Amino acid sequence: MTPLSHFDAKGQAHMVDVGGKSVTDRVAVAEGWVLMTPATLALAAGGAAKGDVLGTARLAGIMAAKRTADLIPLCHPLPLSKVAIELIPDAARGGVRIEATVATSGRTGVEMEALTAVSVAALTVYDMLKAAEKSMRIEGIRLLRKEGGKSGTFEAAP
Amino acid sequence: MTPLSHFDAKGQAHMVDVGGKSVTDRVAVAEGWVLMTPATLALAAGGAAKGDVLGTARLAGIMAAKRTADLIPLCHPLPLSKVAIELIPDAARGGVRIEATVATSGRTGVEMEALTAVSVAALTVYDMLKAAEKSMRIEGIRLLRKEGGKSGTFEAAP
Amino acid sequence: MTPLSHFDAKGQAHMVDVGGKSVTDRVAVAEGWVLMTPATLALAAGGAAKGDVLGTARLAGIMAAKRTADLIPLCHPLPLSKVAIELIPDAARGGVRIEATVATSGRTGVEMEALTAVSVAALTVYDMLKAAEKSMRIEGIRLLRKEGGKSGTFEAAP
Amino acid sequence: MTPLSHFDAKGQAHMVDVGGKSVTDRVAVAEGWVLMTPATLALAAGGAAKGDVLGTARLAGIMAAKRTADLIPLCHPLPLSKVAIELIPDAARGGVRIEATVATSGRTGVEMEALTAVSVAALTVYDMLKAAEKSMRIEGIRLLRKEGGKSGTFEAAP
Amino acid sequence: MTPLSHFDAKGQAHMVDVGGKSVTDRVAVAEGWVLMTPATLALAAGGAAKGDVLGTARLAGIMAAKRTADLIPLCHPLPLSKVAIELIPDAARGGVRIEATVATSGRTGVEMEALTAVSVAALTVYDMLKAAEKSMRIEGIRLLRKEGGKSGTFEAAP
Amino acid sequence: MTPLSHFDAKGQAHMVDVGGKSVTDRVAVAEGWVLMTPATLALAAGGAAKGDVLGTARLAGIMAAKRTADLIPLCHPLPLSKVAIELIPDAARGGVRIEATVATSGRTGVEMEALTAVSVAALTVYDMLKAAEKSMRIEGIRLLRKEGGKSGTFEAAP
Repeated sequence: MTPLSHFDAKGQAHMVDVGGKSVTDRVAVAEGWVLMTPATLALAAGGAAKGDVLGTARLAGIMAAKRTADLIPLCHPLPLSKVAIELIPDAARGGVRIEATVATSGRTGVEMEALTAVSVAALTVYDMLKAAEKSMRIEGIRLLRKEGGKSGTFEAAP
Repeated sequence: MTPLSHFDAKGQAHMVDVGGKSVTDRVAVAEGWVLMTPATLALAAGGAAKGDVLGTARLAGIMAAKRTADLIPLCHPLPLSKVAIELIPDAARGGVRIEATVATSGRTGVEMEALTAVSVAALTVYDMLKAAEKSMRIEGIRLLRKEGGKSGTFEAAP
Repeated sequence: MTPLSHFDAKGQAHMVDVGGKSVTDRVAVAEGWVLMTPATLALAAGGAAKGDVLGTARLAGIMAAKRTADLIPLCHPLPLSKVAIELIPDAARGGVRIEATVATSGRTGVEMEALTAVSVAALTVYDMLKAAEKSMRIEGIRLLRKEGGKSGTFEAAP
Repeated sequence: MTPLSHFDAKGQAHMVDVGGKSVTDRVAVAEGWVLMTPATLALAAGGAAKGDVLGTARLAGIMAAKRTADLIPLCHPLPLSKVAIELIPDAARGGVRIEATVATSGRTGVEMEALTAVSVAALTVYDMLKAAEKSMRIEGIRLLRKEGGKSGTFEAAP
Repeated sequence: MTPLSHFDAKGQAHMVDVGGKSVTDRVAVAEGWVLMTPATLALAAGGAAKGDVLGTARLAGIMAAKRTADLIPLCHPLPLSKVAIELIPDAARGGVRIEATVATSGRTGVEMEALTAVSVAALTVYDMLKAAEKSMRIEGIRLLRKEGGKSGTFEAAP
Repeated sequence: MTPLSHFDAKGQAHMVDVGGKSVTDRVAVAEGWVLMTPATLALAAGGAAKGDVLGTARLAGIMAAKRTADLIPLCHPLPLSKVAIELIPDAARGGVRIEATVATSGRTGVEMEALTAVSVAALTVYDMLKAAEKSMRIEGIRLLRKEGGKSGTFEAAP
């Protein structure tokens, strides 16, 4: 038997029954990076006057969070109550840091929604800047924190 | 003026006119990783009998490639002619390596389709295994190669 | 600081947190017009025997209401409990009047759903009739009434 | 018999056969307005520092253009080659003017894509500003020009 | 007057108001068949080593269940709490039997979600095997059982 | 090795490369039935005055044909040039016969689009009539004919 809840006893994928879980407030925070050269980072950080790379990526990430259950086969559809995304140029690390916070009141968590928001925001940063640099890399996408639900709070190691 | 083709001379986002570009065969290959503990990797590699994590992620990635223009705001919709995704457990690196190949015959490239396929496949690997380990990380998503179009061939550094 | 709830204190777009709002019954009614020549209006009003322009637009509007959160970047996804659309040929005004009523039980209102239903129904009326007249205009799309939620009832001026 | 191409001889809706039409370059330009009070218009025009209403609406309109065939029942799916949207605050008229230009190389025109882009951009302007004013109105959505295809060029009356 | 709830008193389609219905646990089970030759059935049953026809169809059906309200014009959007699909090769009947179980806690039933899951799983079985046999048939799609809601339990005749 | 083109040599699902196939005109015709009691069939056939069951199903089927590549995992996205659906009440057989014709000019066929159109039209007939009869069955969905492409013409046995 598998410990993975997305499979039944026969190893067949299913969207697991969450009908018996209680409705609680749930929050998830995820982060990720798009690494690039200083010249490309300057374009990313240029702001709205020169083309709003980070604002475009923020909207793409927010809209993607709402479509998570359409993209991830076994995710439950959830009525999200909040999606917020920060994109911060970080010259020291050499890239843009992305952090997404998603909240709902429901029977299952929003980890995948937060991770999807970060991923699509990162892809959009890449798309907006790829005319300048094709060798950018998307790195370090991970769950930072989740709260709510039976499994309680998860906090990533620093 | 910005060198970024997704903005016009005033810095406003637009879906750039590719009507004057010629229709050529285009291919893009992208890769990425989902890093995890050896115990989680054993679950991922367990195969169909115990729950087909990698097969599920492969399908999710293929379907996501087809929806790239829906997710990335300034991407052109393209009739893809091929999408193939490899997911290979790699004990040495400690994770699953994902490689996506996308082809089209069109006026613009399929880099974003390949990167989106890798990203959503990686998110699905995370989703399928998160009951076992929440601290997995998605790393190293990048374009490996592209061919076709005016800018010619791009090959990533090794 | 902006009085607009869709932006945070830094002016960044976000899907605002409605988790603290109470679940109440909410209704919104919106209207709009597609103006056209009398000859085109006769085609629109011809009814099912000659091609059901208004019935097609009604269905398109209902289906669009369900996709509002997919179209409007910062809208919250909501499980709608009712969508009804009236399309009435009005010879005096010279066009088709569209009125949409949407209801839900949720944490945020359905104004955008009602306005989206009217807009897509109007676009479909245009599409169905454009072989006869390309100079039709969509006019007067506005919120007529909303009920429910903290801001209470809004009633448009006549 | 109906002169409307979206219906067959029996008056039944169908997606008309365009297989015999030739592939030509096609362009469509549409416009529309969101009318509001001067105070609201000042918020709309405030720019990115205070919350980028017009940039958000531009992206929403571009993304909606790509989904036109999903929204309008009898529209043919088309691989768009260009989508550009201008949103210009106009104090004289008391609102935001929206103009969308869409191009393709295909067997059918892109009038509906341009009108859909304007409509969804207008709805997004409304959504972003509705906390300040619920009585805004969307007005004057119409086709300004189309080029290409058998029916040739259409130019709206001034 | 029509006894069909999807139409109003004038015979116009609407998404009927379920706001007054109580939220109850609801389950629906549907079944269907894809009939084929023994040689094709052997390919279907071959399992993951030779190409996982049934696993692919299972995922397609699960994802389609989540999109039911997007496909069926007057269906209410619902946050599903469970979707499970069995696909069983049946040599005696000469085909693959598909059974889908869908659950929610909501104001309206999930019969259409279960039937849509079966239908799209069946279409996917056809698609995966059509290189071997184009004359397969999809048969016997029906509701087996529903529970919950005012109309209570329905049980199909054997 | 599998004879199924949707799997590679290792049995892994992929969207097969059609880049080398020539662009030809392609047509597919599919049919299916929704069987019901005579009383339900009378409601279905009642026409627009009493609620247009068949017109609603026709539109749902047309819209679904355009979304086939979104629903069927390994289908190629295709720009359809025609979709037409007939729904004919047949008292002798005791149900509604559905026939869909889909055409494109492309590198791969439209069998799945025709079968999907029939399936979703049938599901919509069920949905519209289920308040009157839950024991309806969807039967006999099959490909009637396809033309174009390397494999040439297929004609179903009568």
